[in-house]
Amino acid sequence: ADIDAGEAKSMTCVGCHGANGISMVPMYPNLAGQKAAYLESALKAYRSKERAGGQAAVMYGMAAPLSDEDIKNLAAYFASLDPSGQ
Amino acid sequence: ADIDAGEAKSMTCVGCHGANGISMVPMYPNLAGQKAAYLESALKAYRSKERAGGQAAVMYGMAAPLSDEDIKNLAAYFASLDPSGQ
Repeated sequence: ADIDAGEAKSMTCVGCHGANGISMVPMYPNLAGQKAAYLESALKAYRSKERAGGQAAVMYGMAAPLSDEDIKNLAAYFASLDPSGQ
Repeated sequence: ADIDAGEAKSMTCVGCHGANGISMVPMYPNLAGQKAAYLESALKAYRSKERAGGQAAVMYGMAAPLSDEDIKNLAAYFASLDPSGQ
């Protein structure tokens, strides 16, 4: 996976999930240091709309335009961030 | 929320999500330091089976027996853990 490509792609994510991957919104998850495989699985579930409940629908629009490669890169990027947000 | 009650309830979770909330399994998310409101929303989505895709079905059995109070306590417990797992 290409972490730099993931970072470039993450511009739309940081508004809610935070530039350091620690979200400013209680309902939105922190992504920093999360498991890459889990992030990929979650993004694909949003893209396929299999995930519903809570704020899931907000993510449908975000995930829809992403290719598998985008998803792999984004997951690797957020997984690479320090979980404590430093 | 009662963090101690959450900790007691978390015995079934630590097998996959780790005693310190950092999972040993790449596909399973870290929970340490995650947003409590997000964890509550996710657990309720698993309990109602609104979340599908990926490994979601594994969580249906885990979330089914949980009351709203259990969910609030579990979410508060994992949110209270150090995100870097120390």
